[in-house]
Amino acid sequence: MKKNIITLSIIITGIIANAQSDSATIRKIYTDALTNGKSYSNLEYLCKKIGGRLAGSPQAQKAVDWAFKAMKEAGADTVYLQECMVPHWVRGEKEIGKVITSNSKGVKPVNICALGGSIATPAEGLTAGIVEAKGIADLKRLGKENIEGKIVFFNDPMDPTLIRTFGAYGKAVMQRWAGAKEAAKYGAVGVIVRSATLAQDDNPHTGVMSYNDSITKIPACAISTNGANWLSTYLLTDKDAKFYLKMNCQTLAEEKSYNVVGEIYGTSKKDEIITVGGHLDAWDNGEGAHDDGAGIVQSIDIIRIYKSLGIKPKCTIRAVAFMNEENGGRGGKKYMELAKLKNEKHIAAIESDAGGFSPRGFSSTMNDKQKEKLLSWKKYFEPYEVYDFTHNGGGADIEPLNEELGVPMLELIPDSQRYFDYHHTAIDTFEAVNKRELELGSAAMAALIYLIDTYGL
Amino acid sequence: MKKNIITLSIIITGIIANAQSDSATIRKIYTDALTNGKSYSNLEYLCKKIGGRLAGSPQAQKAVDWAFKAMKEAGADTVYLQECMVPHWVRGEKEIGKVITSNSKGVKPVNICALGGSIATPAEGLTAGIVEAKGIADLKRLGKENIEGKIVFFNDPMDPTLIRTFGAYGKAVMQRWAGAKEAAKYGAVGVIVRSATLAQDDNPHTGVMSYNDSITKIPACAISTNGANWLSTYLLTDKDAKFYLKMNCQTLAEEKSYNVVGEIYGTSKKDEIITVGGHLDAWDNGEGAHDDGAGIVQSIDIIRIYKSLGIKPKCTIRAVAFMNEENGGRGGKKYMELAKLKNEKHIAAIESDAGGFSPRGFSSTMNDKQKEKLLSWKKYFEPYEVYDFTHNGGGADIEPLNEELGVPMLELIPDSQRYFDYHHTAIDTFEAVNKRELELGSAAMAALIYLIDTYGL
Repeated sequence: MKKNIITLSIIITGIIANAQSDSATIRKIYTDALTNGKSYSNLEYLCKKIGGRLAGSPQAQKAVDWAFKAMKEAGADTVYLQECMVPHWVRGEKEIGKVITSNSKGVKPVNICALGGSIATPAEGLTAGIVEAKGIADLKRLGKENIEGKIVFFNDPMDPTLIRTFGAYGKAVMQRWAGAKEAAKYGAVGVIVRSATLAQDDNPHTGVMSYNDSITKIPACAISTNGANWLSTYLLTDKDAKFYLKMNCQTLAEEKSYNVVGEIYGTSKKDEIITVGGHLDAWDNGEGAHDDGAGIVQSIDIIRIYKSLGIKPKCTIRAVAFMNEENGGRGGKKYMELAKLKNEKHIAAIESDAGGFSPRGFSSTMNDKQKEKLLSWKKYFEPYEVYDFTHNGGGADIEPLNEELGVPMLELIPDSQRYFDYHHTAIDTFEAVNKRELELGSAAMAALIYLIDTYGL
Repeated sequence: MKKNIITLSIIITGIIANAQSDSATIRKIYTDALTNGKSYSNLEYLCKKIGGRLAGSPQAQKAVDWAFKAMKEAGADTVYLQECMVPHWVRGEKEIGKVITSNSKGVKPVNICALGGSIATPAEGLTAGIVEAKGIADLKRLGKENIEGKIVFFNDPMDPTLIRTFGAYGKAVMQRWAGAKEAAKYGAVGVIVRSATLAQDDNPHTGVMSYNDSITKIPACAISTNGANWLSTYLLTDKDAKFYLKMNCQTLAEEKSYNVVGEIYGTSKKDEIITVGGHLDAWDNGEGAHDDGAGIVQSIDIIRIYKSLGIKPKCTIRAVAFMNEENGGRGGKKYMELAKLKNEKHIAAIESDAGGFSPRGFSSTMNDKQKEKLLSWKKYFEPYEVYDFTHNGGGADIEPLNEELGVPMLELIPDSQRYFDYHHTAIDTFEAVNKRELELGSAAMAALIYLIDTYGL
């Protein structure tokens, strides 16, 4: 009995000592991120020297070269590329949008931008009547008689009452993704889509849209929320107004591109992998700061933090700059395919693709036992104001790993209130990111990786 | 026994029904704040039409008039003023700061601003050598031999490793508050103080400083963090450089000013009061958006939310726009004195004076039983991403109520990472505030008031 008590006492002492040592390590991680972090200066370079970098563009290739170098500089034991073919869509000249009134008010310019993947209008532009639809479901109500030959103006706003803005985005974005192909079924000749944001401003938000090869392809553009509100009100008084749309975007031949992978070799479990990443590509109209320069520089900084503190992980840690999340997801798929081909053992995959804002928690997709383990680590994060560990979630680039190979996936949840103010716009710039908020994200992910590496998942 | 079971069952059913109904009410509060909220448009008016509004200024009087009107418009059952005398300090002409190098590099302009309460320099300005001190404690090390006749450059930075930036501020701000009177003891002729911020930029941050009547008063100004870093580095190579400082700020005669109080009358407990407020005055160099326009418009919007939803509180709810928090705290003192004089029963006082950012929780100063009750309400807030209920805290304007009358006090904790980027600067403008984040603050406080009103504290 005495022996048992002594054993138990040793175990308990061990657990307490470990917990203290884990807390101390996590404190060091945060301190390092907040005092020596390179994520902010890296983000400045990526945004200001490279800028928008849609897959297939020369800027995307520059970003690949830069990420390779940045991972080396962060101290990765090895850095390599994973080749993948990516779509190559180009916006072309600045789009033109105008309302041609049916009265004495003449022509009113409207700030629009092509949705990613859209076809061009005819070279001389496209002019047609306008019909407003509150989302895709509304097309049926309107019917062919109201839609045929017209431009459909999708004007379903995001729901402001949802606290997490991603929920509202997920709902409203369907009109952007599927609006053109659905409206074309009713004979529409083009679509204008209300920007997916809760901000009231003049910035049109681009983003990917889709066609169906068996349905006529029609051009699709975004209008700002202020523009959409104005247009909706204007149409009440001038039902015969027309819209003039001119875009010369093109889908070119696919291009060769790359994921960039930087590793810290594991010591005792080198063949077991923890992946952390974001996506390197970004829409061409901004600098891709929150989406997703933040995730890239945070992931790279995790390598730097580990090396700076001399933490030697048991498993191999991989920072991955995925290519082509925005309009194809080819990088994420390629990463999974290679993992499958090589029969790699992935312990967990973590993504940061929700902006460089103050971290709030981690969402996850994994089994109950793993969720329980995650929740048991909450105490380590609370001193850093990271509280939220219960939501389901993941990331677009690591979803193939989860879906095909069953790898547990997690995503950093930053505060979401400002994200869609910037998302896919010209104002998603370096200046919109706060240095400390960005660094706290690197630290939270580095701390989570430390716990997964130490205790498994 | 059966009867007992039935009674118990009724009680439990009642508790569950209440919890559901409370959740539903809180959901309505959030929905109303996020869809009908007037805090953002009110903030725009306060910032853009009135702007900086230091106590005693004509702008402060305009703000009083505006707040009175805004509370009426929000639907308050009564609005009234509480007169108080306030200090009246004026900045005067734009301050001039220059480093006069002792070498061929000539004169280098430095962006400075007077600290609130500082005396002026002589009309022709003040020129003296510079000695750098790492905070007040460093004065002793330097001694009179290094300080006498010189300008002390206090350059103790905020600690970036603390997660809550207010902790770092509290430490670093002592050199601003007491630097002049402490340096004067060693014969200093002026002080330049590193701005209390973690941002690296060119904005000097003003803020209140203090004198001791028995010690020579010397002028005090703030320098930006970029300026401080440059000056510190420059002094390494040019120890004989001098600083030229010209300020013509003045302390004028005290002025009459006011707290503005708007009430929703309680139904069954009209004489029991729940106070919620922020401060109406703001430094003259910015628009006082985060500090503390946010707290003002949030408090006013609580009245509007209650009226809009038809919630009839048992207790009286008072929204208070306190005057002179920044450089005297006279409004807060006056509020307490009147409460004491009238023998008012205050159930709780809540303050919002930490910026209009995403709410994270509430800090409090009250007894353990009350803290426990607060913690039991956490579940109602978690769906709104408000998690943090354990920290001690309060607010400067409600502190007298707490200290003198023992009123439990609470403060809204918004995310603190960006706050000191704006605090007391020219960039604390309307544009720095996000509409939803601001509205979530009103909602969180309205929900807390609802729970306090329903269940007591």
